[in-house]
Formats: sequence, structure tokens, C-alpha cells
Amino acid sequence: MTQGIANREVGDQFEGFLLIKSVDKGVASNGKPFLTIIFRDRSGEIEAKLWDAAKEDEETFLAEAIVHVQGDIKQFRGKHQLNVRQIRLANEMDGVRIDDFIEKAPVDLDEMKDYLSQMIFALENPNIQRIVRQILKKYNDDLFTYPAATKNHHEYASGLMHHIVSMLKIAQQMKGLYPELNTDLLYSGIILHDIGKIKELSSPASPTYTLEGKMLGHISMMVEEIKLTAQELGIDGEEVLLLQHLVLSHHGKNEWGSPKTPILREAEMLHQIDMIDAKMNMVNRALEKVNPGEFTDRIFPMENRQFYKPTI
Amino acid sequence: MTQGIANREVGDQFEGFLLIKSVDKGVASNGKPFLTIIFRDRSGEIEAKLWDAAKEDEETFLAEAIVHVQGDIKQFRGKHQLNVRQIRLANEMDGVRIDDFIEKAPVDLDEMKDYLSQMIFALENPNIQRIVRQILKKYNDDLFTYPAATKNHHEYASGLMHHIVSMLKIAQQMKGLYPELNTDLLYSGIILHDIGKIKELSSPASPTYTLEGKMLGHISMMVEEIKLTAQELGIDGEEVLLLQHLVLSHHGKNEWGSPKTPILREAEMLHQIDMIDAKMNMVNRALEKVNPGEFTDRIFPMENRQFYKPTI
Amino acid sequence: MTQGIANREVGDQFEGFLLIKSVDKGVASNGKPFLTIIFRDRSGEIEAKLWDAAKEDEETFLAEAIVHVQGDIKQFRGKHQLNVRQIRLANEMDGVRIDDFIEKAPVDLDEMKDYLSQMIFALENPNIQRIVRQILKKYNDDLFTYPAATKNHHEYASGLMHHIVSMLKIAQQMKGLYPELNTDLLYSGIILHDIGKIKELSSPASPTYTLEGKMLGHISMMVEEIKLTAQELGIDGEEVLLLQHLVLSHHGKNEWGSPKTPILREAEMLHQIDMIDAKMNMVNRALEKVNPGEFTDRIFPMENRQFYKPTI
Amino acid sequence: MTQGIANREVGDQFEGFLLIKSVDKGVASNGKPFLTIIFRDRSGEIEAKLWDAAKEDEETFLAEAIVHVQGDIKQFRGKHQLNVRQIRLANEMDGVRIDDFIEKAPVDLDEMKDYLSQMIFALENPNIQRIVRQILKKYNDDLFTYPAATKNHHEYASGLMHHIVSMLKIAQQMKGLYPELNTDLLYSGIILHDIGKIKELSSPASPTYTLEGKMLGHISMMVEEIKLTAQELGIDGEEVLLLQHLVLSHHGKNEWGSPKTPILREAEMLHQIDMIDAKMNMVNRALEKVNPGEFTDRIFPMENRQFYKPTI
Amino acid sequence: MTQGIANREVGDQFEGFLLIKSVDKGVASNGKPFLTIIFRDRSGEIEAKLWDAAKEDEETFLAEAIVHVQGDIKQFRGKHQLNVRQIRLANEMDGVRIDDFIEKAPVDLDEMKDYLSQMIFALENPNIQRIVRQILKKYNDDLFTYPAATKNHHEYASGLMHHIVSMLKIAQQMKGLYPELNTDLLYSGIILHDIGKIKELSSPASPTYTLEGKMLGHISMMVEEIKLTAQELGIDGEEVLLLQHLVLSHHGKNEWGSPKTPILREAEMLHQIDMIDAKMNMVNRALEKVNPGEFTDRIFPMENRQFYKPTI
Amino acid sequence: MTQGIANREVGDQFEGFLLIKSVDKGVASNGKPFLTIIFRDRSGEIEAKLWDAAKEDEETFLAEAIVHVQGDIKQFRGKHQLNVRQIRLANEMDGVRIDDFIEKAPVDLDEMKDYLSQMIFALENPNIQRIVRQILKKYNDDLFTYPAATKNHHEYASGLMHHIVSMLKIAQQMKGLYPELNTDLLYSGIILHDIGKIKELSSPASPTYTLEGKMLGHISMMVEEIKLTAQELGIDGEEVLLLQHLVLSHHGKNEWGSPKTPILREAEMLHQIDMIDAKMNMVNRALEKVNPGEFTDRIFPMENRQFYKPTI
Repeated sequence: MTQGIANREVGDQFEGFLLIKSVDKGVASNGKPFLTIIFRDRSGEIEAKLWDAAKEDEETFLAEAIVHVQGDIKQFRGKHQLNVRQIRLANEMDGVRIDDFIEKAPVDLDEMKDYLSQMIFALENPNIQRIVRQILKKYNDDLFTYPAATKNHHEYASGLMHHIVSMLKIAQQMKGLYPELNTDLLYSGIILHDIGKIKELSSPASPTYTLEGKMLGHISMMVEEIKLTAQELGIDGEEVLLLQHLVLSHHGKNEWGSPKTPILREAEMLHQIDMIDAKMNMVNRALEKVNPGEFTDRIFPMENRQFYKPTI
Repeated sequence: MTQGIANREVGDQFEGFLLIKSVDKGVASNGKPFLTIIFRDRSGEIEAKLWDAAKEDEETFLAEAIVHVQGDIKQFRGKHQLNVRQIRLANEMDGVRIDDFIEKAPVDLDEMKDYLSQMIFALENPNIQRIVRQILKKYNDDLFTYPAATKNHHEYASGLMHHIVSMLKIAQQMKGLYPELNTDLLYSGIILHDIGKIKELSSPASPTYTLEGKMLGHISMMVEEIKLTAQELGIDGEEVLLLQHLVLSHHGKNEWGSPKTPILREAEMLHQIDMIDAKMNMVNRALEKVNPGEFTDRIFPMENRQFYKPTI
Repeated sequence: MTQGIANREVGDQFEGFLLIKSVDKGVASNGKPFLTIIFRDRSGEIEAKLWDAAKEDEETFLAEAIVHVQGDIKQFRGKHQLNVRQIRLANEMDGVRIDDFIEKAPVDLDEMKDYLSQMIFALENPNIQRIVRQILKKYNDDLFTYPAATKNHHEYASGLMHHIVSMLKIAQQMKGLYPELNTDLLYSGIILHDIGKIKELSSPASPTYTLEGKMLGHISMMVEEIKLTAQELGIDGEEVLLLQHLVLSHHGKNEWGSPKTPILREAEMLHQIDMIDAKMNMVNRALEKVNPGEFTDRIFPMENRQFYKPTI
Repeated sequence: MTQGIANREVGDQFEGFLLIKSVDKGVASNGKPFLTIIFRDRSGEIEAKLWDAAKEDEETFLAEAIVHVQGDIKQFRGKHQLNVRQIRLANEMDGVRIDDFIEKAPVDLDEMKDYLSQMIFALENPNIQRIVRQILKKYNDDLFTYPAATKNHHEYASGLMHHIVSMLKIAQQMKGLYPELNTDLLYSGIILHDIGKIKELSSPASPTYTLEGKMLGHISMMVEEIKLTAQELGIDGEEVLLLQHLVLSHHGKNEWGSPKTPILREAEMLHQIDMIDAKMNMVNRALEKVNPGEFTDRIFPMENRQFYKPTI
Repeated sequence: MTQGIANREVGDQFEGFLLIKSVDKGVASNGKPFLTIIFRDRSGEIEAKLWDAAKEDEETFLAEAIVHVQGDIKQFRGKHQLNVRQIRLANEMDGVRIDDFIEKAPVDLDEMKDYLSQMIFALENPNIQRIVRQILKKYNDDLFTYPAATKNHHEYASGLMHHIVSMLKIAQQMKGLYPELNTDLLYSGIILHDIGKIKELSSPASPTYTLEGKMLGHISMMVEEIKLTAQELGIDGEEVLLLQHLVLSHHGKNEWGSPKTPILREAEMLHQIDMIDAKMNMVNRALEKVNPGEFTDRIFPMENRQFYKPTI
Repeated sequence: MTQGIANREVGDQFEGFLLIKSVDKGVASNGKPFLTIIFRDRSGEIEAKLWDAAKEDEETFLAEAIVHVQGDIKQFRGKHQLNVRQIRLANEMDGVRIDDFIEKAPVDLDEMKDYLSQMIFALENPNIQRIVRQILKKYNDDLFTYPAATKNHHEYASGLMHHIVSMLKIAQQMKGLYPELNTDLLYSGIILHDIGKIKELSSPASPTYTLEGKMLGHISMMVEEIKLTAQELGIDGEEVLLLQHLVLSHHGKNEWGSPKTPILREAEMLHQIDMIDAKMNMVNRALEKVNPGEFTDRIFPMENRQFYKPTI
């Protein structure tokens, strides 16, 4: 457990740098304006009130600014709140960067790049390999910075690649246990399945849904992209259709946004691996924040369950 | 009510031409082979048994053959059965054609073609018009022969175009009542929404699902085709995305196979019109077969309801 | 987009007349009483706080009073709030009436009356016509003032009649497209289907559910009324039963409060038309408030969707 | 366990009287006609085949006829079948009556009549008592002969009254345990709740659904009848509304056909008692047919469960 | 209606003793700390704010303390709030006890004990009787103090035994009406069905879920205990299995936490009686708080319904 | 694809040994008895009719007998049927054993035993190891012969151990990928999770559900057994509770028969691994029976999907 802003106790003094996530203006019961600021660092977030906020404060403390803050941790309606005593903008001398305040995938970027290269190199079907390479080439810059989602699981910088890499590793083990699996299909399906998120989300840093994302969704966009890419490369074998189905069906159920459910062995396996990695990512990160003998917060996408950390 | 094979009473004598839909071979309790034949004409189907079938019978009476039959209508396990007394293949002299035995859309093909041309001509947005024209051009031959489905509604020759034309006519009326509707979007969405069925189904006559149909479905295939077509034509405005969304969302719910639900006014309207025309097609055809004061058969896709034909 | 209280920006000055929708008393952290007032005009609502409210204020600013207000638009917890600087009761000189502040159906009342008369006149079955006339006569005063609901769709003055008239117009078009429809049944069903709301809701202005409404609901009340009316008029043919079924089944599903689902062609059509008009009313009004390229607020009864207003 | 036709073992000889429930004509593989007859007595039903049936047989052995049969019990596709060796119509000398072959409520009719009279007499609210009396008067003949349903529970002669009487007895006990219950409401609600079935079903002997039953259902018909009756008697207090709600809500859920769910204490209790009596009727009758240590057949309306009869 | 803290009107003065249920510390907009206290007595709860709370206040006014309070009832965000003017800890002279502030089962404890003894004595099967006695012996102290739940129904001191006794009384009546019921099974099943709650909940006074309760639940714990007890006593007949099934299945559905649904007549009856007693407990207590002609608050576990108290 | 009875084509001659799975007696339309026999070998099953069966045939051809058969493969109602020309009981000389006709796990029994021993040996927590060893000891004989289910997945001899071993192997790989997993919990949970099936099912050869299985189910039985075993061994730490929870929650949802859902990381992982191995077992075996480019039969427990075998 790191000692960030999210790990302090009520009553603690805090002094240090924080990133402003959002600012909201209100009017207090005495008629004076105040600011509600959400601060964040890598450990998480905390809300603060800046009472009697001057016009100048409003113009200074904006979202995405880094500030130096002194204050105490209070309790308000069952949640922590930072009672700000002093606040100033960080300056160049402070030597702090936005990246220092944003959660990142807990793995080395270069290692992930190498591993991905090897996995693509290992694809035996030339059509599949060419389609995968061509698509990845288009996204090169974003592939290693985007999160896998805006919330719930792998929702941090490089989360998308972290998710892909974890799934590929599970897939390699599954091949050992179920040798009937066609690894060309399974590996390429995993690599492509969520790449559509790069178009679905607006930016790696504070992602929101794009118009295209809301209208079509990342699944349909990638299914279309596979076809377009195959056409560019002059490929039209069954491989194209199989790759499209692997992406199309990976949510596993109509209700969950896959217009067709898996009818390939590898598509079913892809869906199962996706669920395991998403769930483990959520559970592990929730358990990290509690001590043995305690329960985690409720995990919304896992039916709101609270997990227990055993004492043995 | 036409006087076809599906409208006879138990006890009736039958003599006339029928089309063989399918033949199945069995062995009777006396050890001798028999044939189970499904006959059809435009009114519907009837099962028959050909007892003590000779090898020659097996080789003569094949699916898609037209035959001349004499027999009586019996009841077996609650269903009509044709007791065949005489059967022979039709020959050239008989002057009968397969088309005479297959249900067709109850509208004139040329009228539909003219109407569709006018509607396309009336599209004001040039990008939308060009995309629609270009897509229709690719399907020219099949556009006016395919059914809209393998069963349930508009499942007859030219059913697809019959469905599109009916929906366009409703849409024109809706524009009068809700003038805010953008007819370029609504009309083009209607024209394209089910065209993917031409690739989803194997043939107009006895359609089954293609591999592509099972893997991707007609919705995803058409969403992709819109993009490909736009690219061919060098078009990439918001129109492309809107057209794709209209097709993508037209089933109205995730559970019904639309990975995104309608978020355009015209997409919601398209979905509603689709439901009305499909339901009216089913209800009208079921009611046609019964007399006032009677109930129809259960209509499976309408929650298995039986409709009542009033006496007033 | 009208320039009412709901369309102002944060930071705007406001001066003008508003209607008080509700007043709630609280005690501030300094121990002094304050009033939470909801103001409304035709554009919508805004909340305001009246700090340090004197006893006199409490007795002056009551629900349904019209006041003249000066203040600024602030933001509080993500919603607009009116910061009141000056407030006084409107007086006779001001020449303002409650009607000026309440949303009304965007159609002419006299036109609706004429149209309804024509439609009733056109009913050919004399029993149906007599029943419809007799029922409408009982509600005469309320028929043209009641909303169709307390929220969601047509929830404004004369909303009930607006809804009926829109549906009748759709029905007329549907008859052109599906000539099998019995218009006596369809039109009379539409006219009667929601009239029970006049008994279900307490008043046209600020409607709440009556005891009868909660115990039986508008559907059962109207089904009963049709029977009572037929009895008064000495009518007992199949028409009575058909009319009752049309009303009874118009919500389309048991879960939605129809104890029987539609088993008449016209009952199914009535349900479909009801859905279209309700949905278009909601979508159109939500889209009216936003600019091209923007999304509407979430529309709760349409699965919480946000609709997009295209830029083309 | 009675020793009726439903309780015989495979291999048993049978000789005795049976009622013909239905007859269906077929053509055997040798081209000769045969009859499929369903026989019944109070214990249940059995299917039989009459091979090589003469025209005369067809005209003699009709539904609702009583016959004397000799044959053996065989097994066919997992079900018992009666292999008929001899069959003749019963004649006057045989002294058998249809009533002897139809299941009846296992309680004395006169006792039920007396008990019902007492319960009505005990109603203290005069309005409620008058409405109940008036309604029962209209149904007098059928009240004691109708079943409570066409299948599932109390589906035998006098089943409706058997169900009402059982529920009233439970209700009396509940009053002792929950003295807050208003017995005028609870008892009258129980008496009336299912009387609409007399109009919903065509006849006590072999009931099918009437047109009115399919269009409106027994709940809506009785709600309407309460109102009509109150009007005839010049009663219009809250009692009328409460009685209507008790009937309207007795299925407990919208999905189960109650357009409003119970919002009276007595309405909730009525629904619970209805469920208990229906379930016990089904479970008891299923358990009657098996020996200790055995399981019953699946009981469809109880989620297809098979109940176990303990050996202790 | 008792005149406790939950029954006061806005504007009332209050002076008297209250129990502190919980205390939460906050910081007001003026930067000073305040306490949010939930007070309770037998009638229910009320929230209060203690502004400008000194360090001493924080240390004095703790959960489970009894205090003497003067203040007024205000309205805040639609709920009552107590505006505290004076507050002090209760002392010995005041002669008040925690028990005076906690809701208790509205029945005499000694009577319940006697009744339970009789019911156990009446069990005829010696194995069942011995198992029941042995299990109850283990819980002796808690059996008559625990609530039946933390919220919803019988959630007060001795609520568990109150629930058991009510259910036994219903069961005795059911035996009269359905003589086939095996009372050894039904009575012993009722006695044991919820005893697992004593291990599932942490304490009778302010119960929370134990680790065992969250991991296994009261049903599985009692099923296990029956087996262990039978083994201690050297009993292993079918009785053990039947008792286990009665407990296992008493929630009636998988979704409600019973891994097997009832397949014993007595298990089905136990489930039905459990539902009746839980629902009547909730409905009766909600109706107690309102006047004739009024509606109760929404009752969450009864689909959020509001019940009506009739005026007749 | 093996060349067993399930892999023949219509028209094939068959001569060889088969196991009789079941025999049913019927009466043909000519009044003579016949036998319906289900034959099986390792490839699957086929139905046959033995016409004009003598009394002697009935007594000779019993379930579980091995016979030598000559006949042809016919088609009847869309399914294969074996037309028997000659049939005789196998004798000692034939050298055939029941085991030769029953599907077995496709893995070596001794290897599975060794592997299991190693995995148990590797458990580090002594309490967990002792409980696991003690429980397995009780089932020794059946542990390696039972199927994992009566149908759907691993429903063959030694299927239970095959399933356990596969899951353990996946779990070992998962530990490498998610090092936070506690392998003592995960491995022991996997070993125990389905052992209750040995008591739930009547026998390894032709398993049906036992009374205990129907009343309690394998999950509750094993939860109880863990407790009993811990007690025998004098163990009562948190380990016992954790092991119980792992077994209790392994179906993952209440609806699927787990009264509590997973709240341990290892319980969630166990559930996911169980699903993967069950699904892969079903999909792999279905795909084994078809050629590239074909679809499998519908797989009922996988939402009735048909899987496609690619041609690449």
C-alpha cells in the first residue's frame, strides 16, 4: 500500500503536491462563492472545499493543474475530505510532472513491446499476421498509452496493452492444456479485440466516449477495420471472417453488446480469458487496499460484492 | 381465402399439381421402406406418406419436383395429412412452373421499382444519395427477389423489397405528422437496414443462413459495407456514421442483436416502423386464413398470441 | 429554444416573473431558517435558496404564487441554482397569469376540438359511436385541459388531447397503408384509451394520483366505464367487448399493466401507435433543448438514453 | 389410492366402464383407418388405439359416451396404453352415469353451501354484504358446479367452491393470529376473487375459455361486475373501491395478470392464501398417487418440481 | 401510535431522553467541527446536528450513550431533523436503561418460552425431538434476545423468537385445514429454520453480519449443525435429511439463497408461512404509523409498495 | 473420429458388438409386441426396433447385456435407426467387456493419481492438507471412477478426476500469471469442489440422482463434510471456513445453486476455471465429431449454440 492521498487517516496532516482533476463552483450559505476541488495522485482521489474563493482562485486552480497543498484529512458524510489550509500552483522549480500523478500499468513498457512483437512474429498464418501488423501500425502511438476502459478494470495509462499482454500469457498456457486451440486465431483475436477502444475513447489521459464510440462502439469499429485492412492488403480468405467473428463475439452475450455469440472454440476461449483478466485486475487492486481480515469496498461490475482478505 | 392445399377440410378429395418441398425415407413396421413427402403450393404445406415406396419412387420424387397428385385429406396427430392414391411427375404438357407454387409479395414488382427510384431521387443530401445508390447497384439482381427472412414475416419471394416499400410509405406519413424528422436519414436508413440479408441468406428460393450470416449477421455486414462504399466514393462526413448507426441500431435492443440502441430520432423511428410493418404482416396473413368469429393459429414471434377476427 | 429560466447560463443575471412550484423550510448551519423554493416558467424549473428567511417570507412565498425576482444563475452540485437578490409578490398591475408559466400543448385547442368532432362523426358503427359520444360527454370540461401523464410524455396542459389527436392522425395514415384495419375499432380505441387518466389524476394543473387511480388504474376504470355506458344506452353487442379489449390491452404487456395482451389487429396497432407518439414526444422535446452536435439529457423512460442532434 | 384406470400396472388385465373423453381418427401404415381414444375415470386418463376401425365404430364411439371395455395395459413411448380387446356402449341396465367418471371436489356440497351462508351472514358492513349477496345470486346455479380452473389446481367439478371454502377457513385462522385484519374485506374478497371464472370458462364439465374470457379475463370481468352491482344497489362508498382492488390485485404481480399489485393489508393476505391453497391442492393430489419413498410426477406450475413422500 | 421521537410534527418542542445510535464528525463551512448524531427511541430515529462541537463534546457523546436533550423538530431535505438546544449525558439518578430505547417484540417472553416448550414436547418422532432439543440447548441465551434480521421484518429484540412463535401458530392452524401435513416435520422445520441467524449476526443489540455469516449464510450453517448434532446423538435416519432439506429450501428459490427448492410438502408450507409472517409483520408495522385514509411509507422489500389504510 | 455406431452413414451395413443401454416394450399396429432397444458403444448410441419380439427375446435382451448384431443403418424421423437382421448375446469366447463400450476419460488413470498426490503434497498449510487428505481417503474407491455429471460435460467414466486434474493444471498456470493467488486455497478448493457428486450420484456406471442429492445437492453435502472432517481432526481455524466458502460459492451465482457468491479471490478464480474446463470439454468433444467447414450439433448448456470448425 503506497502512502498517497487515498491512504491517509482522518486527522492526518497532509503536505505535498497533488493534481487537480476537476473544479466546481458553488455559493455557500453566507452568500460567498466556494470551490469544490477533486485532487488526485496515483493512490486515488480526495474532495476538498476552498471556502471564500476569490475570483483569482477560480482562475488559478483549474483542472489538470498541479498544486502544492497543506491541509488536514476530515470526514464528511462518510467520506474523506481535505480541509485546505494553504494552496499554491506548482512551478518549474518543483520538478513535478502530470505523469507522476496518474496511475500506470504496473509493468515495463519496453518488455510489453518486445513480448507483443514476439507474439506477432509467432503467428503462422501469413494472412492473419499481415492483417494484425497492418492494423497495429495504424495505432502505433496510442497502442501503448491508452487505458482499456474509462473505469472498472485496466483504467490507467497503458492499461489497454497491459490487458492484452496478460490475456496473451493466459492464452499461451491454455494452448498447453487444450492443444486443439488454434493459436493463430486465439492470439490474433486477443491482440485485436479491444483496439477499437482507441477510437472509442477520446484520449489516453482523461478519456471520454467519442461520437463514433457512442454511435457504433469499439466492437463494430474494429470489425469494420479488419475488413478494410484485408481489402487494402488484397486478402479475402476465411481468415478475415474468423478474425471479425473473434472481435464481434468477445463480449459473449447479446445483452453485453456482442451482436453474435461465440461459435468458434477460440472465440469462446477469448471471451473466458477476457473475463478472467478483467475480474482479477479488479479484485487484486481492491484487495491491495485492505489488510488481512478486512473486506474491500463494493466492486460494482462484480455484482457489488465485497471481497475478503484472509488471515492465513 | 384461396383454395390451396392448406385450406382443405378433412375428408376432401384432392386432385392437382403440387411442389415437393422435401422427402425423407423411413422403414415401416412391416420392414418396407416408405417416403415422407412435404408438398407445398402458395397456400402452404401438407405432409404425405408414400407407403411401400419402390427404389424407383425414391429416385423420381425429389425435392423441387412438381407432381400431379390424387388423394384424400386425413387427420393424423392433430394435423392434416394427404393420403396419396396416385402420383406422377408433371411434364412439359402440364404447363406448370415452380413460381406458381411459391408465395410471392402481394404487390407489383415494377411499381415497387418505380417507387424506390423516386424515393432515392428525393434524397437531398448528395453523400447519402450516392452511398445508397452505390450499395443498391451491387445487389441489383437480388434486391427484388429475396425474402426479408426465412420465417415469421415477409418470408416470401420479393418479401425484402415489399418490407422496404411498406416501411418507406409509413415513413412518408410520419414526416407529415412529425416534421422534425430528417427524411434523408430516415428514408436511406429504411432502404439499407435489411439489405445485409441478401448476404446473410443463401438464396431467394429456399434460404438458409450463410457462414458469413452466422458469424457476423446482416447488421454488421451492412454497417461494414456502408463504410467500404463511402471509402470507394471518397466520402467521409458525419453522414457515413449516421447511416451506420441507423442500420446498427435498428433492432432496438442489445438482446435483439443491435450492439447499440438508437440515439438518433430517425433511428428510433426506423425501429418503430420496422416493428409495425413486421407485426402487421404477420397478423394480417394469419387473419386472412380464418373466418369472422374465429381465432388464428398461435403467432410465435408475437408471444404466441392467437388473434381474434371480429364479427362486426 | 425559448429564453426561459431553464435556458440561462451560469453567471447570467435574471430579472422577471416566475411561478413558485414548491417551498420547503430548512435551518442553516448558523441556526437561522431558510427557504428552498422551486421556481418555474414554461421553459422548466430552477431551485433557489432564500437565506435568513423571516417568518413573513414563509407566509408570503407560497406554492402557486407568482413573484418578481432578481438574481444570478449559479452552479451547485452540478445543477443550476438561482441566487435571489430581490423578490416580491406579483400584483394586479403586473398583468401576469398562472397560465403564462405552465407549459401547454403546442397546438390550437379549437382545431383539436373540431378534428375530434369530425373523427367521431366518421365512426360508422352506431353502437360504437354512441358509446364514445356518451363517455366523452361525461368528461367534457376536463377532456381539453388534462395532461396525458404526470411526467415523461405529454405531461402539460391539454397533453391528453394532444396525444389523442396525434395518435388519430397516425391511425388515419395507417388505414391508408393497411386497408384491412377496422377504423371504427382503431379510432374509437384511440379516443378512449387514456381518458381514464382524468379520474386517475387529481387535477389538470398539478396532478397527483387519486385513491381510485392507485387502487384500480386508468385502464380498469375505463374498461368499467365502457360497460356502464353501454348498459345505460342499452347496447350489448360484440362491440362493447371489443372496445373494452382495446382499452384493456393498450399497454401491450402484462408487466406494463395490461392484464391481457392485444389479440385484435386494431389493439396491436393502437399499442404501436401509442408507443410511437409517446416516444416522439419525449425525443422531440429533449432535442429541442440542444444544439446540433450535442447530446440531450438522459431520457429515463427510454432506457436512459441520450439522443444526438446531427450536424447535417 | 383408488384402483382406477390411472393406477394400473403394465401387464394388468382391465375390464370395466370408462368414459370417452376424445376420439381422433387416423390411417395406419396398412392404409386402414384406426381410432385413437382417450378414456377417463375419476383416477385419470389412458390412451387406446382401436385398429381396423369400421365406419360403424367411428359413429358409435363418440366423446362423452360411456363404454364397457376389456383389454390389457401396455407401455408405449414411456406411457401406458390400453390395448382394447372388446368394447361396447353402456346401456341403461348398466346403471352408470357420467358423474361417476368425473373427479369431484372431495367435500360435501351441502356443507359447503351452509358454511358459505354463515360466512356471508357474518359480514358486518352492510354495503359489502349486500354486494356479495347480489353477485352470488346471479351465479347461483354455477357457483357450486364450476371448477376453479381448466387445469393445475381445483380443476374438478365444484372446484371453484372448494377453493373458496378452503381459503375462507384459512382466513378465519389468520384473523386469530393477525387481529388487525379486517374480516369484512378479507372474507368478501375471497368469496368474489375467482367468481369471474364462471364467465371466463364455457361450462363446468369440459371448460374452455370464452371470448370474453380471452378478451378481458376473469379479474377484469369481476371488477366491472362489482361496480355494476353497487350501482344497481345504489351503493358508492369506499367499500366498492376496496372490493374492486381486492379482486383486481389478487394475482399479486403485473406479470401474473393483476394490473395493480396489492396495497391493502387484506389484499396481500388474500393473495398469500390463494397461493397456499392452490399449491397445497396440487401437491396433495400429486402425493396421493405415490408411495412413501417415491417422487411425484413433475408439477408444471410449481416450477416443474417433483415432490418426495417421506418414509417416516 | 406511541408518542416517541419518530412521531413528532415539524415545529414541536422536544425534551426527554434519547439513545445515541451513531455519531459522525464533520467540518462546517465556517471551518468549525460539528457532530451528526442519530438519536433513537422505541418509536424510531431522528438525525441531529451539533454545531461548533468542542473536543469535549466529541468525547462525551458516543454511540450507545443515553442523553437528555432539548430541541425543536425541523425539516431538512424532506426529513425531520432535531435542532439541539441543550444536551447532557444521562446519569444514575435519571433511572433510564438502554432497553427502554430499543424496540422489542410486542409479546411476553415467558409466554413464548412456555409455548415453545409445549410445541417441542408435542413432537412425536423421537429423533426429531432430540435433534431440536439439542440444537436449542446450544443457543439458549441468545434464542430469546436476537432479532430475526438486521432490517425489514422482526428486526427488534426477541424478533427471532417472535417470528418462530407466529409461524408455529399459523402452522397449527394449517394442520387443521390440511390434515396430510406431517407436523413433526413442519413444526421442527419452523423452529430451526432461522436459528442460524444467531451465528450469522454479531449481537442481538446492534447486529452486523459475521465473517461466517457472509461466507456461508445462516441456511448453510444450520444445515451443517443439524448433521453435526445428529452425529453427536448417534442419529442417522431419513429424519436428518428431511430436517436439513426443510432448512435448506426455506427461502423457496435459488435466487433467494436456497440452493434447492422445496420438494417436501412441509418444506413448501414452511416457505409459504415464512412469507406470510414476514409480510404481515412489515405491513402491520407500517400501517400502525398512519391514520385511516393515508398511505404508508414505501416498504422496500415488498416491491416498494405503499399500503393504504381504509376509512371503513 | 472413431468408426463406432454413432459415426455410420445411412445405408451402411453394420456387424459387430454393442452394449444394450435400455429396452422398452411396445405393441405394433398388427397387435404384435416389439422391442425398442438403445444400443451403445464408445462413439455414442443408436435406436433399433426388434419387430415381432418373442417372449424369449424380451427375457434375453436386457439392459447392460452385450450382443452381437447384424443390420443396416436407416433414417427415421431425422435420426439414424438400426434395422436389426440378426442378434445374439455375446459369450465368453467373444472376449468383450462392458468397459469396452463405455466412454472413458482420455487420460491415463495412474498419471492422474500421481499428479493428484503431488498436488496434495504441495499444499503448505497443514490444516488444509490434512482436511483434504482425510476427505479423499473416505472416497478412495469412487474418486477415480465417477463421472463429473450425468450429462453435458465430463459425463464419462473417471470424468470427475479428469475435470479436477484439468482444473488443477489451469490453476498452476494462473498462479504464474497472478502471483497473489493463494495456491493452498485454490488447489484444495478445486480438489474438493465437486467431490460431493460421489454422494449426489448413485453409481459411476449409470448414474442417477440420490435422495440426498435431490434434497441437499453436492455443494451442501461437501460443505457439511468439510466441517465434520475438521471436527474429527480437531481443526477449527479460519481455514475451515475458507474451504467451505470455496466449495459453497463455486457455481458463481445464486441462480446456479450457490447460496453465496464468491467473496474470496481464489473462489472467483475457482469458478472461472470451472467454467473454462466445462465449456472446453463440451466444445472440444462436439467439434471432434465434425469435419472442417461444418457446424456441430447444438450444445444445450451453452445456450444451444452450434460451433463452427474452421477450414484454415
